[in-house]
Amino acid sequence: SGLVHVKNPHLDSLEEDVLYHLALGTKTHNLPAMFGDIKFVCVGGSPDRMRAFAQLMQKELGLAGDGEELADICAGTDRYAMYRAGPVLSISHGMGIPSISIMLHELIKLLHHARCRDVTIIRMGTSGGLGVEAGSVVITDIAVDSSFRPRFEQVVLDDVVVRSTELDKHLAEELLACSKQVADFPTLLGHTMCTSDFYEGQGRLDGALCSFSNEKKLDYLRRAYEAGVRNIEMESTAFAALCGLCGLRGES
Amino acid sequence: SGLVHVKNPHLDSLEEDVLYHLALGTKTHNLPAMFGDIKFVCVGGSPDRMRAFAQLMQKELGLAGDGEELADICAGTDRYAMYRAGPVLSISHGMGIPSISIMLHELIKLLHHARCRDVTIIRMGTSGGLGVEAGSVVITDIAVDSSFRPRFEQVVLDDVVVRSTELDKHLAEELLACSKQVADFPTLLGHTMCTSDFYEGQGRLDGALCSFSNEKKLDYLRRAYEAGVRNIEMESTAFAALCGLCGLRGES
Repeated sequence: SGLVHVKNPHLDSLEEDVLYHLALGTKTHNLPAMFGDIKFVCVGGSPDRMRAFAQLMQKELGLAGDGEELADICAGTDRYAMYRAGPVLSISHGMGIPSISIMLHELIKLLHHARCRDVTIIRMGTSGGLGVEAGSVVITDIAVDSSFRPRFEQVVLDDVVVRSTELDKHLAEELLACSKQVADFPTLLGHTMCTSDFYEGQGRLDGALCSFSNEKKLDYLRRAYEAGVRNIEMESTAFAALCGLCGLRGES
Repeated sequence: SGLVHVKNPHLDSLEEDVLYHLALGTKTHNLPAMFGDIKFVCVGGSPDRMRAFAQLMQKELGLAGDGEELADICAGTDRYAMYRAGPVLSISHGMGIPSISIMLHELIKLLHHARCRDVTIIRMGTSGGLGVEAGSVVITDIAVDSSFRPRFEQVVLDDVVVRSTELDKHLAEELLACSKQVADFPTLLGHTMCTSDFYEGQGRLDGALCSFSNEKKLDYLRRAYEAGVRNIEMESTAFAALCGLCGLRGES
């Protein structure tokens, strides 16, 4: 049907669904009217960048306005920022898995309540490249954890549930094909490693704490490269797991 | 000596230390002049609230100005926001352990470079109460993980390191004593549970995914209460671990 799935039997019995961190809700907002025609959702860490991206989309899609009038749809909260340009929704998610997870739970419910169909979601973000030309764009074929395994461990109450981190391979190929049409835009397919820490978790030698040597760091990054990792960031495994479970066609 | 410790032998050999996510650095800013006299650091998730808190501090401390002129010291980035009022620094950290960890690494280096002494750091935030009167303030005696253990598992490269999550007991008692001087301000000491997920991790029945029954949720929360947990949030174990290791007197 192309609809977004929620996998929660309790949701139907809610009289009102408040999307707390988006400052939206089923009683306070007409979600089908506001979002029913959304086809693409683009997410990234920084609110300013997601505003700039919505402005770019408005221009590229030939929509009226110069982008300056774009209003934050989540203006009632400073947790996340959300803008739309035609069928494209542009949302910030902050940094790290917990932050993107809160946003994705509420976004998926939003798309469900709005009865959106055939939605494609793409995460765009800064990442550390691994053995690739500086400035390259890495299109994720699969997201892996800090041990290079294609899995996301979600704690549910006090159990650990392991989820798949596969992304949409066809979408990845489409994005790669698009990139070939742009000159001087180095783009490649590769595994993306997702860590929960920017300093100790990514082998940086300049955090407040560092207990490893440069040699140990280089050995870790070499092993990551050999496992197919081409970039490192902090959200991709949770993004892949949640989008996959809820029927969103996702890429990162 | 009361100085803030960094535990990183590589730092001394850096020609410049760029605090990327704060948009500050040792070459671009005179950190001792800007921050050398800071004695208190208050952190919380939301940038707007941390601005309001700095304004409140300015008023309570009898400092000149009405607070409207307070400028974001991290204006060069939208990752975090930082304000100061006299000896009090007020900083946002976003949501979740990865987000607060990035900020704390860079804050601890900032306090180190600025040669601050005897700094007290307090995290203030919204949390879900457990078996306590609505509106209560829970002062954390110890931060525990989703299995009620007083520990924080930090992934360092691909190893897991276990860290203590003890906070400053004397400071907790002092804060509790202060609360008694304010009428109608229900305050208690208790364990704070830190989760990596707001929906499935905290027993909420209204996420996009929910695989457990109301009974299983209540059983989990009952076991948490019996283990001494009085509130649930998403940053305390990492906060306690990092502050403890770096010699910051910390409370949450």
